Amino acid sequence: MPKAGKIPADHVFSRFFEPGSIAVIGSFKESFFGGYVIVKSLLKAGYKGKIFPINPAYREVHGLKVYPSLKEVPQEVDLAMVMINARSVAGMVRECARKGTRAMIVVSDGFAERDEEGARLQKQLLDIAGEEGIRIIGPNTAGVLNTANGFNPSAYDAGYYRIRKGPIAIGAMTGMTNPQAFAYPDLYFGMSKICDFGNKCDVDECDLLEYLAQDPDTGVISLYLESIRDGRRLIKIAKSVTKTKPVLVFKSGRTKEGARASASHTGAMAVNDRIFDGLCRQAGILRLQEFKDLFEIPKMFASQALPKGGRLGIVTITGAVGVVIIDEGARYGVSLTTLSGETKQALDEIYRGLGTMPVDIGPMMAAVKNPFEIYAEVVGAVAADCNVDMLFNVVWANPAEVIFNSYLKVYERIKERIQKPVATWIYGPSSEAAADMAKGIETMGFPVFASPEKCIQALGLAWAYKRYTVQGARYTE
Amino acid sequence: MPKAGKIPADHVFSRFFEPGSIAVIGSFKESFFGGYVIVKSLLKAGYKGKIFPINPAYREVHGLKVYPSLKEVPQEVDLAMVMINARSVAGMVRECARKGTRAMIVVSDGFAERDEEGARLQKQLLDIAGEEGIRIIGPNTAGVLNTANGFNPSAYDAGYYRIRKGPIAIGAMTGMTNPQAFAYPDLYFGMSKICDFGNKCDVDECDLLEYLAQDPDTGVISLYLESIRDGRRLIKIAKSVTKTKPVLVFKSGRTKEGARASASHTGAMAVNDRIFDGLCRQAGILRLQEFKDLFEIPKMFASQALPKGGRLGIVTITGAVGVVIIDEGARYGVSLTTLSGETKQALDEIYRGLGTMPVDIGPMMAAVKNPFEIYAEVVGAVAADCNVDMLFNVVWANPAEVIFNSYLKVYERIKERIQKPVATWIYGPSSEAAADMAKGIETMGFPVFASPEKCIQALGLAWAYKRYTVQGARYTE
Repeated sequence: MPKAGKIPADHVFSRFFEPGSIAVIGSFKESFFGGYVIVKSLLKAGYKGKIFPINPAYREVHGLKVYPSLKEVPQEVDLAMVMINARSVAGMVRECARKGTRAMIVVSDGFAERDEEGARLQKQLLDIAGEEGIRIIGPNTAGVLNTANGFNPSAYDAGYYRIRKGPIAIGAMTGMTNPQAFAYPDLYFGMSKICDFGNKCDVDECDLLEYLAQDPDTGVISLYLESIRDGRRLIKIAKSVTKTKPVLVFKSGRTKEGARASASHTGAMAVNDRIFDGLCRQAGILRLQEFKDLFEIPKMFASQALPKGGRLGIVTITGAVGVVIIDEGARYGVSLTTLSGETKQALDEIYRGLGTMPVDIGPMMAAVKNPFEIYAEVVGAVAADCNVDMLFNVVWANPAEVIFNSYLKVYERIKERIQKPVATWIYGPSSEAAADMAKGIETMGFPVFASPEKCIQALGLAWAYKRYTVQGARYTE
Repeated sequence: MPKAGKIPADHVFSRFFEPGSIAVIGSFKESFFGGYVIVKSLLKAGYKGKIFPINPAYREVHGLKVYPSLKEVPQEVDLAMVMINARSVAGMVRECARKGTRAMIVVSDGFAERDEEGARLQKQLLDIAGEEGIRIIGPNTAGVLNTANGFNPSAYDAGYYRIRKGPIAIGAMTGMTNPQAFAYPDLYFGMSKICDFGNKCDVDECDLLEYLAQDPDTGVISLYLESIRDGRRLIKIAKSVTKTKPVLVFKSGRTKEGARASASHTGAMAVNDRIFDGLCRQAGILRLQEFKDLFEIPKMFASQALPKGGRLGIVTITGAVGVVIIDEGARYGVSLTTLSGETKQALDEIYRGLGTMPVDIGPMMAAVKNPFEIYAEVVGAVAADCNVDMLFNVVWANPAEVIFNSYLKVYERIKERIQKPVATWIYGPSSEAAADMAKGIETMGFPVFASPEKCIQALGLAWAYKRYTVQGARYTE
């Protein structure tokens, strides 16, 4: 393994994330898909490497010269991205080899995900690539993205081209995590890398983990898998990665029916879910529950300190939410704390009964004189309590300005004083107000989740990861 | 039991949902909470009954005369809503009785949810109410709402006062389903009734179900419960209700820890979750998975026909989603269908490989000439296939106008031709475009859900309910 923080220049994923030049081979017709979009995305994202569009039928695209064929390009080409007919791809591998190209992203579909003939083409592609020493992402992929160098060769138009830099990396056997499929501008905590493995005929999650382990821009890794190729290698690499960076996995194809569907999606062989679960526990991989967790749960790891224990403090404006999430907490070894005598007394002095967990500020809000002033004090006291390892804060999104500002005060108070993870759920009568408030709170560095259950899942997984790293213990839900 | 569609005038919930007059007893200070808000909500929601604000310290509120005490009111009062100190509530019951009042909504807190002294006050309240023949909702409740007559005595200001009429009724042991806590203007399919039982010292979910069974405005009932008081009565009433109207329940306090928290929230005794599960299966009650399901899942029942079988058709622009939701489907006896030979052939003629389930239009969209024209045809063909009982449609929210309009065409086509449930998930690079498209699709009568898993849960519960009503079978997940 290379030293931490240093990626060897010849790592397979350096070829995909940091190419000095890219050939884009396909149609350049103005459309929402294809080479036209790839070149546009690269230019608009600020990619500084050389871009060589290849197609005999075009002269120019977005001001760049289009070469009739790869061999006309006057220099070596680091990476080729192809969107040509499946039957022509293997031949293109030979052409790429002659240009010194050692990496290809095969966007083309019609391979193992389609039928037996496609599976044959995929095998042929892999064989020839092996002979030529070329590594493949795909086929049937939406490609990759690297925010560090503006390398965004997106083939589908997302309407935006730059993504905020941040510590989250996503790898998936689907294009559903590429920019055209998810509103990354809404993901405040920012991205480092995105990779769609497509049919995953060659380069896979193990290669990606190896690279991301050393990538200084990546702090947390989210994976969508339908299958794994080499369980032993995955355990070995993941074990090493999870020592310093959390790895979250959502795996579909858990049921027999799902496995069958997976085969027709990427042509992949699925793995028994119980075996996969054991693998995750050994390697410290955290399992996600649903697709959108891929984007949601990393926010916790990207922004918050890990908890020192599983003792949960709750401040809520409604008692029911406290009850709802305690059930969820039990899954993750998270349990409702008891406030220290000191905090309890301080809160009970503010309002009778306030010093009981979950701290329900509802009755107080209707009864005290400056409810929103006192609110910041209450949250601050609970967050700072020595019996509290993590905080769940429930926020009422009322459109009134006085309320909005009061919440920002609450988070300022927490930010100054504590190093504990905080998860926030916002509810209320106006979705616009809730969205504004979520943006305000995330801008201050605190993740907001879409449901109370999601808050506790995020805190629970943070605690599971902490246990794993400290005790080397297999994590348990 | 009364005849279907006819609520006996003296049903306990007629007193709460259809009072001819209401006394509002509490503070009328301008604020986001209290009597000031209740009177405002009633007036703005168009309540036509008489409103009597009661407080010796005020003369007038929102143009209405404030009476110094209940006994000064020059007529009988059907319902009293009180927000006075917990210790004064029992005395107020006597006063109400003298005014002919037979129903009280006790908003005041400080009862069994607080401490032993509060539990004693609650018992006293109940005893005196029993003596006087007065029925109680609460204490510690946010109250009720009836869209049919504009009866909206909300004590917390939601910023809006009228809710769209529709078939969904919600009853909960929390104020989290009242207007100040949820953006009802976003719930396109509309509401009939809302009730927060609060500490549920008297009137409970059985009473509500009895009323809603006969309520012509209610078509589907969503309940949040932390505890039940009388399992036998609940089974008996629910069995009768679920013959014609689906009843959905989210129950918290499932774990030991949650049960403890529940006790401190509403002072309620929790019930063993396994026993509760058996009860639901006997009575045909459908269980929900998380809090927000209370609002989400009813949309399916409020708008779609019940499926005739569990054979799922999927049209998606991404293969992965097909895989993800098949796992979820397995939980609900929903399985991926195989298209009839005729449909398969028709689709394969449009694009090679298209006639395979899940129908992945991704490759086609990039390859054919008028992808969005053909798209409506494809969805229409799948929806109409005799092997398809329910449809999951995945929509790509691209801001381009041509795409937006193409989706509306798709739903027009479905609406004309089939009577099968359809669930839609929207994804894409712009949350604004997704929200606009969701609104467009829901306006056409088709529910949109926040995740692929939620779509299949809604379809699966519809199929579970259908099986229950047809076969009298206990539903199984």
